[in-house]
Amino acid sequence: MTIQRWKITLEYRGTDYAGWQRQIDVPSIQQAIEDAITKFCQQEIPVTVAGRTDAGVHALGQVCHFDLDYGDRPLDGYGLMKAINYHLLPQPISVIYAEPIDNEFHARFDALNKLYRYHVIQRPSFLCHDRGAAWHFKRALDVEAMHEAAQLLLGKHDFTTFRDSECQANSPIKTLDRLDVTKREYDAYGGVEVIFETEGRSFLHHQVRNMVGTLMLIGEGKWKNGDLIAALEAKNRGAGGVTAPAEGLYLARVDY
Amino acid sequence: MTIQRWKITLEYRGTDYAGWQRQIDVPSIQQAIEDAITKFCQQEIPVTVAGRTDAGVHALGQVCHFDLDYGDRPLDGYGLMKAINYHLLPQPISVIYAEPIDNEFHARFDALNKLYRYHVIQRPSFLCHDRGAAWHFKRALDVEAMHEAAQLLLGKHDFTTFRDSECQANSPIKTLDRLDVTKREYDAYGGVEVIFETEGRSFLHHQVRNMVGTLMLIGEGKWKNGDLIAALEAKNRGAGGVTAPAEGLYLARVDY
Repeated sequence: MTIQRWKITLEYRGTDYAGWQRQIDVPSIQQAIEDAITKFCQQEIPVTVAGRTDAGVHALGQVCHFDLDYGDRPLDGYGLMKAINYHLLPQPISVIYAEPIDNEFHARFDALNKLYRYHVIQRPSFLCHDRGAAWHFKRALDVEAMHEAAQLLLGKHDFTTFRDSECQANSPIKTLDRLDVTKREYDAYGGVEVIFETEGRSFLHHQVRNMVGTLMLIGEGKWKNGDLIAALEAKNRGAGGVTAPAEGLYLARVDY
Repeated sequence: MTIQRWKITLEYRGTDYAGWQRQIDVPSIQQAIEDAITKFCQQEIPVTVAGRTDAGVHALGQVCHFDLDYGDRPLDGYGLMKAINYHLLPQPISVIYAEPIDNEFHARFDALNKLYRYHVIQRPSFLCHDRGAAWHFKRALDVEAMHEAAQLLLGKHDFTTFRDSECQANSPIKTLDRLDVTKREYDAYGGVEVIFETEGRSFLHHQVRNMVGTLMLIGEGKWKNGDLIAALEAKNRGAGGVTAPAEGLYLARVDY
């Protein structure tokens, strides 16, 4: 018996899934991956993920690991990727890289850094090409002010104001290493794409979406920087802005 | 009676449509737009388009015009855009700009320049986020060689080699003003997005897709620049490469 641990990197469109975690009677990313692995090797193999994503949230570089006993047959990363993808199609979930890794590797506990992106498209008319892939926001936004305010959230804080009530983390204290807000032209008639990029070792449940929703108050001019600081210091979810919709959020990269 | 001519700019995802032109029993972009206008004003109003697009082809900036008798009621571009969009939803077709224009304006005949983009995503694993929005190509491409070769097609030529047999243009002679091929990183594991941008006053039927399909032979190293020149000079569709799939093509902009 030869058990090999594998690390796989995944892309997925979360729109039609109830999130990463396996649930009864609703499709999940975890179930799709585990089912595809079972179809490939005829074994039921549990998969461990770097970070669970919520319903509707997307991934560009989710990571998971699992242990596979493939006997003495040859198997490399490319072959495993192709085999799992064959069984994932036509679902919008794709293995983009697979590699054998030492048996001590743990997708969740060994993650040193995560990069999330959040996309807002600001314009009056509804979205065609990016429907379900970004938050469509109609009112004008001061993106420079949002970026400036975002810097106030960097560092080690009690992020209770940006923490979902169902968050299971032991502590609300996290260190935020980066939160950049940039914009680019989206269409020829003033449409703007606003891109949030944030990095840190770990995040609370809904933390990114709650930070985005709160920074929109700055962008709309409803809040000043002092209001953001007061909200953070209130350590109270009720003091923050709305939770930005799941459809704009991407787990972009996990670093080890 | 006050007839006003309107110019509208459209975005659409062509995937589930038989193309621009109205046909019996299959959904078309033209029918969707004309039906939405009828629902708004209770009149059957024909719409004239800058350039018809084929089944599955997308638009970021298609342009059309139509004449509307709205009596003495006030109507501005923003209001017209909102009204048509209200009736277009939930289809992936959206008016992104609407403006009153003088009655001599003609969306097709007055077009001075068109910009098309074609997207190829080159990597082994299938696409999740851009499925139906780009040509998924698995083999490696030399993008610099493609760009260099593309410059040989600039200028005034007989483009019969890149012309669909069903093309209804009077002449195969066209002037190509720009054909740039660039690339950018698509994912963290070597995936590359290749973007073709081409401009000219007008194009033959399938010209862009046939030029793209032929330049892929250069990218794969199957052809040298001399082969491309020979194909152009052959003035024979059979001398060119394949027609690139519709799903990668976008009518990006029409200039007047």
